[in-house]
Amino acid sequence: MEYKVMGPDSLNPNVKNTVNTLTGELFLRAFELQKEGKKIIFAHAGNPHALGQKPLTFPRQVMALCQAPFLMDNPHVGLLFPSDAIARAKEYLAMNPGGVGASSVAKGILGVRQEIADFILERDGYPSDPETIFLTDGTSSGVQKVLNLLIRNEKDGIMVPIPKYPLYSAAISLFGGTLVPYYLSEEANWQLDFTDLQKSILAARREGITVQGLVLINPGNPTSQCLTEADLKGLIELCIKETLVLLVDEVYQQNIYQDDHPFISARKVLMDMGQPTSSTLELISFHSASKGFLGECGQRGGYFELTNIHPKTVDELYKVASISVGNVSGQILMGLMVKPPRPGTVSYPRYAAESQSILDSLRLKAHIMTDGFNESENVICNFTEGALFCFPQVKLPEAAIAAAQEAGKAPDLFYCLKLLEATGLLTVPGSGGYDQKEGTFHIRATILPAEEDMPRIMDSFKKFNNDFMCQFRDSDNILPRL
Amino acid sequence: MEYKVMGPDSLNPNVKNTVNTLTGELFLRAFELQKEGKKIIFAHAGNPHALGQKPLTFPRQVMALCQAPFLMDNPHVGLLFPSDAIARAKEYLAMNPGGVGASSVAKGILGVRQEIADFILERDGYPSDPETIFLTDGTSSGVQKVLNLLIRNEKDGIMVPIPKYPLYSAAISLFGGTLVPYYLSEEANWQLDFTDLQKSILAARREGITVQGLVLINPGNPTSQCLTEADLKGLIELCIKETLVLLVDEVYQQNIYQDDHPFISARKVLMDMGQPTSSTLELISFHSASKGFLGECGQRGGYFELTNIHPKTVDELYKVASISVGNVSGQILMGLMVKPPRPGTVSYPRYAAESQSILDSLRLKAHIMTDGFNESENVICNFTEGALFCFPQVKLPEAAIAAAQEAGKAPDLFYCLKLLEATGLLTVPGSGGYDQKEGTFHIRATILPAEEDMPRIMDSFKKFNNDFMCQFRDSDNILPRL
Repeated sequence: MEYKVMGPDSLNPNVKNTVNTLTGELFLRAFELQKEGKKIIFAHAGNPHALGQKPLTFPRQVMALCQAPFLMDNPHVGLLFPSDAIARAKEYLAMNPGGVGASSVAKGILGVRQEIADFILERDGYPSDPETIFLTDGTSSGVQKVLNLLIRNEKDGIMVPIPKYPLYSAAISLFGGTLVPYYLSEEANWQLDFTDLQKSILAARREGITVQGLVLINPGNPTSQCLTEADLKGLIELCIKETLVLLVDEVYQQNIYQDDHPFISARKVLMDMGQPTSSTLELISFHSASKGFLGECGQRGGYFELTNIHPKTVDELYKVASISVGNVSGQILMGLMVKPPRPGTVSYPRYAAESQSILDSLRLKAHIMTDGFNESENVICNFTEGALFCFPQVKLPEAAIAAAQEAGKAPDLFYCLKLLEATGLLTVPGSGGYDQKEGTFHIRATILPAEEDMPRIMDSFKKFNNDFMCQFRDSDNILPRL
Repeated sequence: MEYKVMGPDSLNPNVKNTVNTLTGELFLRAFELQKEGKKIIFAHAGNPHALGQKPLTFPRQVMALCQAPFLMDNPHVGLLFPSDAIARAKEYLAMNPGGVGASSVAKGILGVRQEIADFILERDGYPSDPETIFLTDGTSSGVQKVLNLLIRNEKDGIMVPIPKYPLYSAAISLFGGTLVPYYLSEEANWQLDFTDLQKSILAARREGITVQGLVLINPGNPTSQCLTEADLKGLIELCIKETLVLLVDEVYQQNIYQDDHPFISARKVLMDMGQPTSSTLELISFHSASKGFLGECGQRGGYFELTNIHPKTVDELYKVASISVGNVSGQILMGLMVKPPRPGTVSYPRYAAESQSILDSLRLKAHIMTDGFNESENVICNFTEGALFCFPQVKLPEAAIAAAQEAGKAPDLFYCLKLLEATGLLTVPGSGGYDQKEGTFHIRATILPAEEDMPRIMDSFKKFNNDFMCQFRDSDNILPRL
């Protein structure tokens, strides 16, 4: 048949130019192998529950009661639900007349926004106004609303850290703007490189791009570093000097696996800098219950907080938010994340034990995985300071690069395909949406596989990598062991 | 302070040009009056649960169990949940490893898409392929994905029925396209006017617009008519002749309040037309559990089905869907809506009684409200055949129009404000986003207020309208009573 209107050649080129990293050859092959009976370890995406992480009991008890408020009229409810979960569900139901089935105001339920403001005050020591907080269906939805407002045409540029999280490139492409890359310094543990940042701004301007905003991801994704206070301060000063809105993605702020670089919010650093700086930077901060240590990717709840944003711009954001109605139970989940059970309550001991156990296990797995990569020939990996990922560099021998070119594949994709075939471990190559410095090759893997499987996974990785390096060893090009 | 980047004057004009109907004077006044202690009847939006409609028990039992699967390990679970709800929850949890906390594939859970395909087969008598079905966070989200793909620039036009549902105008504006209006015939019970349709296409083309698609809402919103099979057939022929994609919003297909014009899906009419027609029209059909008689606006679950859409275009849609991850519990809700408990199951009697009670009550309220409007001086209202709205025309006296102009307000807004002040009834004027033929004035009200309040609401409307018409009676311009 003919496809007269929506044929693939006549679609919006902004959509066609958008790259989807999750539909390529590697993923199709993984599903094929799975069908053939091979056990696949889906370490390609930060989807914790799919990899066996159990939901936290208390938030899910409250969510269940909000779904079925009639349970609270049942005399047996106390046999299945603790009293504080019941009390909390009643609080949320009272905040939104009609409960989870009734749409809320476009900014989200006021009571939840107040819980978030309280959390920000406790975290940073500076008050937050619930009217500057918008609840979203996760960060991807919030980022899209903001970029939709910020990008007017292809001459508007948004700076994005490389290696990058593909959400940002996809959304910029979708709205027809220009991605302006800045490179993180792998040698310096993926911290910022201010010389490169400045160069990147100048280069973009020379091409006629109006650089509008800068995206920072802290802790990094896929790079997992926690930024130092000094770097954050430097970045804020740069954004003010260069007139950029700072968009800061802090969705992994509670997933920290070391004590040298604690998480510190961009907003706190800004406020610490005092007047007039603290009221000069236009800052938008994102957080999410669909990420973080709750890891509820399938439930969509997040927020962004606006600092120093013009009130009329807030109204325009409200308009965009009104068009895409959000889900109310995700809002409640976000509230439960920022206001967990306090010490002394019925559910506190269990909540504390469960969340500590998740974070302890992630910390252990960050070590096992980073160490495993670093023990592998020609592989070097910065320690996963936070978030959910390892992003090791694999120094591919010339012979492997040549073999990849012969096969018509990017060298890192070639490596990931071989890894998948040999071990069932599904990772993503740096070239598959993350990007990397020219001539370097990386893979991204989540630290999410089960703790008990992790040693075996890293052993099989090491064995595969050893075989691979042997196969393609270039006698005149042997790299030093790390 | 200065707002250097995101000041209101430097934002994306597509967003600035988007009209939000829910932040205007009328709404602010309603909230003010509520704060002052006046009882406000929020009849402005189709948000059933906010107006007291209770959720259906069975879907919410399953949703609660999916939120808290650990309940099913509790020996007392049978005291709070029936066995078929437990079985159904287990089915859904098995369909998406990791449950509601794990994100699904971008098209949505395959098992739910299969349930939808089964529902379509049962409804229309023609099979549907789950691979042509995308689950969405409600229809607004689905419509935006499709329009994003279809609209390339301001020269691309999408035809929208007037009076219209503001979602469509907002989304077209957001993506920078052009809305091409076509007028429904109020005199003919809001059915299609093919002469006007043809004129509208020609007029748009004369202005250099590429007319890409046509939106149809059936049952209508805000106009509530159910389209006849003949009109649907005529429209399909028109779309084929004029090379338009047909986007059909059928979210109220189960909310039908009369027997003369049953709902019939555009897809069934197309299939009934046989080859080659049935494989010629590019058709996208939308449905939702966030609307319909479930009325779960606060939970976001919907789908669209693609008929005769190019496989590569489906891949592009998949890309757009991958960027905005959907919520999984909304997918499950959509499944529960299309596959309710069957006769003979434990939960059937209750489910059948609850859903019948909602539909019976809506049918009764549709009559009370339509009759109440028609019994009012200078007010004429087509019967609410389906959906959730009345959209009566108010023939405003010249003196009222003059008074409105003096107050600097649209005449229908002036009327709605007076109505709100006098009775607490919050409606929306036709000029507030719906549009209407030049020189006519309408108001939109939902039929959702409680059945027991409805006679009193309509009495107070009649009293207000009578007083209003007396106040502004134009001695030389008395309109005949209907």
